[in-house]
Amino acid sequence: MKVGVDYYPEHWDSTIWEEDAQRMQGGGITLVRLAEFAWSRLEPKEGEFDFAWLDAAIDTLGRYGIQVVIGTPTATPPNWLVAKCPDILPLDSKRQPMYPGVRLHRCYNSPSLRRYTQIIVEKLTRHYGRNPHVIGWQTDNEMIGNDSHSDAANSDFRLWVQRKYGDLDTLNREWGTVVWSGEYSDWSQITTPLGGSPYLNPSYLLDYHRFCSDSVADFNRFQARLIRENCSGQFITHNLWGYPVVNDYYDLFDSMDFASVDYYPSTDLANDSKARVYHGALTLDLTRGIKQKNFWVMEQLSGTPGCWHPMSRMPYPGMIRAHAWQSVARGADTIVQFRWRTARIGAEQFWHGLHDHHGKPGRRFEEFVRFSEEVRRLSPLLDGTSVINDVAMLFSHEQLNALKIQPQADGFDYLANFKQLHRAFLRLGIGTDVINWTSDIDRYRLVVAPFLFLENEAVVEKLRNYVAQGGTVIFTTRSGVKNMNNVCLPTSLPGALTDVVGAVVDEYDPVGNDRQGLILHGKLDTTCSQWCDILSPTTAETIAVYSTDFFAQRAAITRNAYGRGTAYYIGSVLDDHGYRTLIGDIAADLDLAVFNNLPAGVELSVRSGNGKRLLFVLNLTNNANEVQLPVADARSALTGHSIAQPFVLEPMGVEVLLLE
Amino acid sequence: MKVGVDYYPEHWDSTIWEEDAQRMQGGGITLVRLAEFAWSRLEPKEGEFDFAWLDAAIDTLGRYGIQVVIGTPTATPPNWLVAKCPDILPLDSKRQPMYPGVRLHRCYNSPSLRRYTQIIVEKLTRHYGRNPHVIGWQTDNEMIGNDSHSDAANSDFRLWVQRKYGDLDTLNREWGTVVWSGEYSDWSQITTPLGGSPYLNPSYLLDYHRFCSDSVADFNRFQARLIRENCSGQFITHNLWGYPVVNDYYDLFDSMDFASVDYYPSTDLANDSKARVYHGALTLDLTRGIKQKNFWVMEQLSGTPGCWHPMSRMPYPGMIRAHAWQSVARGADTIVQFRWRTARIGAEQFWHGLHDHHGKPGRRFEEFVRFSEEVRRLSPLLDGTSVINDVAMLFSHEQLNALKIQPQADGFDYLANFKQLHRAFLRLGIGTDVINWTSDIDRYRLVVAPFLFLENEAVVEKLRNYVAQGGTVIFTTRSGVKNMNNVCLPTSLPGALTDVVGAVVDEYDPVGNDRQGLILHGKLDTTCSQWCDILSPTTAETIAVYSTDFFAQRAAITRNAYGRGTAYYIGSVLDDHGYRTLIGDIAADLDLAVFNNLPAGVELSVRSGNGKRLLFVLNLTNNANEVQLPVADARSALTGHSIAQPFVLEPMGVEVLLLE
Amino acid sequence: MKVGVDYYPEHWDSTIWEEDAQRMQGGGITLVRLAEFAWSRLEPKEGEFDFAWLDAAIDTLGRYGIQVVIGTPTATPPNWLVAKCPDILPLDSKRQPMYPGVRLHRCYNSPSLRRYTQIIVEKLTRHYGRNPHVIGWQTDNEMIGNDSHSDAANSDFRLWVQRKYGDLDTLNREWGTVVWSGEYSDWSQITTPLGGSPYLNPSYLLDYHRFCSDSVADFNRFQARLIRENCSGQFITHNLWGYPVVNDYYDLFDSMDFASVDYYPSTDLANDSKARVYHGALTLDLTRGIKQKNFWVMEQLSGTPGCWHPMSRMPYPGMIRAHAWQSVARGADTIVQFRWRTARIGAEQFWHGLHDHHGKPGRRFEEFVRFSEEVRRLSPLLDGTSVINDVAMLFSHEQLNALKIQPQADGFDYLANFKQLHRAFLRLGIGTDVINWTSDIDRYRLVVAPFLFLENEAVVEKLRNYVAQGGTVIFTTRSGVKNMNNVCLPTSLPGALTDVVGAVVDEYDPVGNDRQGLILHGKLDTTCSQWCDILSPTTAETIAVYSTDFFAQRAAITRNAYGRGTAYYIGSVLDDHGYRTLIGDIAADLDLAVFNNLPAGVELSVRSGNGKRLLFVLNLTNNANEVQLPVADARSALTGHSIAQPFVLEPMGVEVLLLE
Repeated sequence: MKVGVDYYPEHWDSTIWEEDAQRMQGGGITLVRLAEFAWSRLEPKEGEFDFAWLDAAIDTLGRYGIQVVIGTPTATPPNWLVAKCPDILPLDSKRQPMYPGVRLHRCYNSPSLRRYTQIIVEKLTRHYGRNPHVIGWQTDNEMIGNDSHSDAANSDFRLWVQRKYGDLDTLNREWGTVVWSGEYSDWSQITTPLGGSPYLNPSYLLDYHRFCSDSVADFNRFQARLIRENCSGQFITHNLWGYPVVNDYYDLFDSMDFASVDYYPSTDLANDSKARVYHGALTLDLTRGIKQKNFWVMEQLSGTPGCWHPMSRMPYPGMIRAHAWQSVARGADTIVQFRWRTARIGAEQFWHGLHDHHGKPGRRFEEFVRFSEEVRRLSPLLDGTSVINDVAMLFSHEQLNALKIQPQADGFDYLANFKQLHRAFLRLGIGTDVINWTSDIDRYRLVVAPFLFLENEAVVEKLRNYVAQGGTVIFTTRSGVKNMNNVCLPTSLPGALTDVVGAVVDEYDPVGNDRQGLILHGKLDTTCSQWCDILSPTTAETIAVYSTDFFAQRAAITRNAYGRGTAYYIGSVLDDHGYRTLIGDIAADLDLAVFNNLPAGVELSVRSGNGKRLLFVLNLTNNANEVQLPVADARSALTGHSIAQPFVLEPMGVEVLLLE
Repeated sequence: MKVGVDYYPEHWDSTIWEEDAQRMQGGGITLVRLAEFAWSRLEPKEGEFDFAWLDAAIDTLGRYGIQVVIGTPTATPPNWLVAKCPDILPLDSKRQPMYPGVRLHRCYNSPSLRRYTQIIVEKLTRHYGRNPHVIGWQTDNEMIGNDSHSDAANSDFRLWVQRKYGDLDTLNREWGTVVWSGEYSDWSQITTPLGGSPYLNPSYLLDYHRFCSDSVADFNRFQARLIRENCSGQFITHNLWGYPVVNDYYDLFDSMDFASVDYYPSTDLANDSKARVYHGALTLDLTRGIKQKNFWVMEQLSGTPGCWHPMSRMPYPGMIRAHAWQSVARGADTIVQFRWRTARIGAEQFWHGLHDHHGKPGRRFEEFVRFSEEVRRLSPLLDGTSVINDVAMLFSHEQLNALKIQPQADGFDYLANFKQLHRAFLRLGIGTDVINWTSDIDRYRLVVAPFLFLENEAVVEKLRNYVAQGGTVIFTTRSGVKNMNNVCLPTSLPGALTDVVGAVVDEYDPVGNDRQGLILHGKLDTTCSQWCDILSPTTAETIAVYSTDFFAQRAAITRNAYGRGTAYYIGSVLDDHGYRTLIGDIAADLDLAVFNNLPAGVELSVRSGNGKRLLFVLNLTNNANEVQLPVADARSALTGHSIAQPFVLEPMGVEVLLLE
Repeated sequence: MKVGVDYYPEHWDSTIWEEDAQRMQGGGITLVRLAEFAWSRLEPKEGEFDFAWLDAAIDTLGRYGIQVVIGTPTATPPNWLVAKCPDILPLDSKRQPMYPGVRLHRCYNSPSLRRYTQIIVEKLTRHYGRNPHVIGWQTDNEMIGNDSHSDAANSDFRLWVQRKYGDLDTLNREWGTVVWSGEYSDWSQITTPLGGSPYLNPSYLLDYHRFCSDSVADFNRFQARLIRENCSGQFITHNLWGYPVVNDYYDLFDSMDFASVDYYPSTDLANDSKARVYHGALTLDLTRGIKQKNFWVMEQLSGTPGCWHPMSRMPYPGMIRAHAWQSVARGADTIVQFRWRTARIGAEQFWHGLHDHHGKPGRRFEEFVRFSEEVRRLSPLLDGTSVINDVAMLFSHEQLNALKIQPQADGFDYLANFKQLHRAFLRLGIGTDVINWTSDIDRYRLVVAPFLFLENEAVVEKLRNYVAQGGTVIFTTRSGVKNMNNVCLPTSLPGALTDVVGAVVDEYDPVGNDRQGLILHGKLDTTCSQWCDILSPTTAETIAVYSTDFFAQRAAITRNAYGRGTAYYIGSVLDDHGYRTLIGDIAADLDLAVFNNLPAGVELSVRSGNGKRLLFVLNLTNNANEVQLPVADARSALTGHSIAQPFVLEPMGVEVLLLE
């Protein structure tokens, strides 16, 4: 377990580095990430390199026992490079350049970007590849996509589709370009989606999104190869930006040693109509699922975020510590706080770090020190533990992108709906892994496979076998609609899974925000919205029916015995209460531990390993909450005291129970 | 009476055409529209034509007794053409091209578009001009405007204004360009409205809109001429896209044999705060009014619409049939359902047809078959009938465009206000014709001439004479404000109509959303908004006064005896209840049949001719509604049974009463 | 005291000029502003000048005793000039031209603009410099900024920063470009902020705003120099557009003889949730403060505004007169009504003047005539009087721009917050001067220095000395945050003022719209929002504490004795009631006259001089209001009658009390 900070020595007079390092050591910091964005300092002009300042900074930190992770500075090509090679700038869909000034001013497909990236990364890695204080590398920063329409992006895209489809006849057929006379008679007619219209062929758009994601992953692999050549003893990671965007994060990290995430939970506790308090847990579960092992938080909330947009609320007392512990609870082995000092210069002056602009230690720094000391104390217990859950949720960037291209109904959003399902498990205290939909699922007791809009044959077979062998799967509406080229299938819904589900979709109604009634198990009278499949069970039993509109009394949710297992099909999008009841019942049937009375905003997570089991209980609200856990009396790993049930968690209170 | 479907054989494997044709025949279909958008299949490369597939498709259909309407494919220039002639693309007001991908990627002013349109249309018409299965042609598809700033559009616009004004002095004077030093000293200084600013000279903008509309109509005439040369026995029509946009539909159809419309009533029955249930009737009345005779529906709602935007509600059971009957009731002689099969490919995959993606007949197809059978049964009664009304509403694309350029007050929208007036007649069961404001009105008992913002001398004279000869006209606020060049007149309001109206506007207050009180006939206490004319009657009597603000007690609505007729002037925009009361009273005075207790959402329409009178009663809601009509007991044309008053219409219920 | 109108003789047939002049004379008009925007009439083609029509118009007016102010027509370069010199057009941040048509189609940095401005202004001034009817000049029209990215703007901006910083090292250091590798290695890399992103370095953006403001002021100085050369006996002014925008108005007017303003108070009386009724007073106070002396209103509300946007409400009866008197009350010596006739042509057809389109005198003209006659009657009393107040509010365009670049919290808006503070004084009937933050303050009893976000050393010293010498200052939150290059200071807040304030900001919370409780003087239970400083008093006493959230009981407002004076510090943004109570108490402590029971919307102002004191009492609402003033019985200057307390002001009623 390590605790660290993000630090930008080049933003400060070097005379304060020593004092900073000393105070870091005092605060228990053993790790610093630095140099990301520092290209113009490392290579002030083409071919002129200046590493002396970085040597000095690393040396200073090293003298205080602090290890270093270096970020490659490629997210910010310097002005001299842009002036020399304007092709480095991305072009928007109207072919206008994205000018420098922020930090996304580089097209991943630009050959110039590759050439100059190679030069700076090779120089850096040769210089620091054997530095004893440098333990690893972060590539670039928060690579969140590529929507460039440069010449290079266009020709790369053309090559990408040529590789995929081989010939134009195949491409025309698979994309269905005959609609609206969109057939290509020459490869040169294929471009990136110019003009910014969302009203384009969905097969084409999905492939374009894949190409963009691949371009980013490829650039990351390129950097990883460069680093590995010179830095055999050092790790490589990348810091992902919160929730998935256009990139497929599973691809993005295939060249990395482990995943890292930048974690900024919402500080707005007063108005949480969107249940944001539960979003963070999904971010962390997703991150852990990328490599299916423990991960790092490379930037952890340390103060209010703010830059060009208005500042948010300052973190409530205890919030910084509570969310750092939340990260640990869900599998983080290293917490790097962003950032040591709040910037005095540049566009992120109000993205607050542990210290305010005046640099004197205050409430937030003290809270961090408390966390740091606690981590040090618990390190022996935490070492070798990880998060091992019985439930897996299958996440798919493919579905995310396909359902963005064609939103199915008002309010129907893949990520929001996924969050809502995940939240139901959080509220019940059931730990969930969130893994790639193509990953292995054999070891799980329950699998949630929502919104399998695009039908992947291998995934279908995997799920079929899993159920046949005794597994339980929850399927949902909008499954089996399309093939992987985003073309609608000619089969009845839910497509190839129909026999596993034991029911067929007779009709559907995209009800959007017209909320409908739904009766679950003949007792719970609840509601649903967005979409209503009208089901005809074949072998399945009906466990919920609609109670409104022309489809009243028709089946809404079914359960089917298939082979030795069970398949549920949810034909609509339930409200929170409906999901919680349904999933609670399913979990109880499977003898999973269910915590029915968790107060809102209180989260559980278990880390185990080496014969140890640690139950984290986190109160992520600004109210005190009484918690009654159905576990035997346990000892607090934080205080050593025995904890009687029920017990009270203060606002932002954290408890860690030693279960063995 | 014909019933048909839109069909895209090129989207499907030709092996299913036969089965489709057979099922069509079984469903009573005798007509198919096809080939629109198929340019890339008909001319895969420049000068290479392939009509074999279309021959085969038409032949297959023909063998099942199905006639064919061919759509010219010019709405979607193929990629090879765009690559060869980039001038075919429209440029937006920042001179950026509109790239292909959707289907509006052609500038009507492009000479290349003309050249290649001529080639494909001549080829097509020569090939199919004598095909016995082909009964007619649809030009292009839903031509909704031209806002292109290409070089060709600019030079055409310059020619257009030269033709209109002759010399620059006249143009400068008529446009009032002296304001803000906008005087032109050379024709070359005149451009289309570049930069996208709405803050431009309104005379210039209105002429630009006219030019755009003319460019579209001219392109349609060009196609009509080409078709007529080779297809003497076949008709020509165009399918207009619902409500009027920038085009003047009267001009657009001057070269057509009859009007057609694409009709997609809202399926959102749950939330109808905008009274959309009544919009469809106006669409149909407007369409009938274009040529003042029966028309076609070329695309009729068959499932939920949806493509890049979220899907709407699936049509409620009965809705497809009810709206098909509504089209017939208001003058459609042919109903073509859009579309036979829901597309599996392309951007409109979720614009549902009669069959879902799986292609098996379901609820919607069965409902269509019911309608189809009913039509066949009633055909002998319907043949030779048309819609003949006593009330005309004068619609003007000129006013629509002028009032978009300069919205008069918050909420003041020509089309919305026109809809609201039309709705008052619908609620009272009074049939209305909606005709061009320049059309002849002699045969009507009551004429509504709202918002005559631009003053047209011929229209003024027509209305004056009509009233003088004994007619009744309802005028409204914002009349007589401008001349036809969109310049404000120096006369008092309502301008040249002041003597007919018998009142003068002393002052006005654009009250916008500040709702005001209004007392009608000294009894009904109701409200008005948007605009308040403060009237001084000269020869008129006051029939409503305001009851609020500084103009309380001042006249708001007047009635004037002029010659042998009567002129009403409504100085504000009433609420629905106020309009209904006022118009009900006026209609009663004229001995028009008024149905005061029609339930909301129930519509009436009469078709008559050849000594027959059929009263259609349509319940366009998802509730049952009891209807009490002040007509003698009548026989149902659908069932042959006698219908006693009152009777109940089921949700989406339809009744057709034989009045003779 | 003069009363005039804006008049555009070139928009009308010259045959009506005589009649207009006669009616003007009858209405008491002695002044007309004309010729602004008339470039295309004055110079129809390059080098061809036509002043004959203007000679005739001025002559006609002169014959009726009407003096003339000429506007230079440079806001609207004519089409021939744009065609010849396209570099005259501004380019937006995507380098797209802003096309002519509206009236901002000129880049202040364009050399062509300078060249042709010089020609037309020299011609005009030589021609009219000695015309006895011409008393002065207005430069251009409402110069509201310059956001041009033309080549000229780019090279001028580069020169501007070179002049300011001398060398690149200094610039890189002062702007903190090291962040995100933004360091410049060559001057040529510096551009205007292309791409339209708000997410740029704030130091750079603030300097760009300064450059834009300087470009405008420089263009105004350029015109002033040209005018002064030929027009020694005539004044020069400029008409500013209401509230400050990007321009620094103090700089803009440094070359002018006095300030003028275009004044269009909101006519929307029905919905005033934003307290707009009080905005006008601030506009007028700001204008008076520019040169710290009496000013002109060059365009005064005469009818509803409206052009491309929907029209607003027509001015309520009495409103035109009341606001004209409000202008006089706050220091206007001349009122020019905009405009004589409502335009029949061009884009502002519905921006109503004193006459409607029909040109006949009506309610608004009669109201104006009443005002005009009253002014003539009171002129002897008003002559030599001005507005002399005891309170100064320091306004800063620097803070305005800096806080726009980085809004601090949801709802935190410099201008809105400034208005709210100003409103508190208005509600208490306390006259305030609003002056440049760098101006001298010695003569004031109370100074409000809000939001001194950027710390200016001279201002700090001035305020420190002022307090030390016995003055009272109200400081607020977000002071002392940054240096003048928009870089955060390393000092604790409120920076260099900490000892004057006697308190330090321990922490802050950008609470935004999360309203918090605040207890003032231990009694008033009120609220605050946007921002909460958590204060630790050193030498100050706490006069308000928070009552909510984690900072409950912590100090929110302090008062400190410093030297012989007092410094208040308000650590949050109070609600209206809180401000009124706090400021009322402070004013009472200082023995300022406080009017605690003024009805909402009733405003006071005093003009004095030459031994006279006139108290204006204005009811700017559409309700009658009873007013009780703590002054001895006084005589009405309008009627000569004695006014007993309390007295009633009619809707839009005006009273002027002779206090001596």
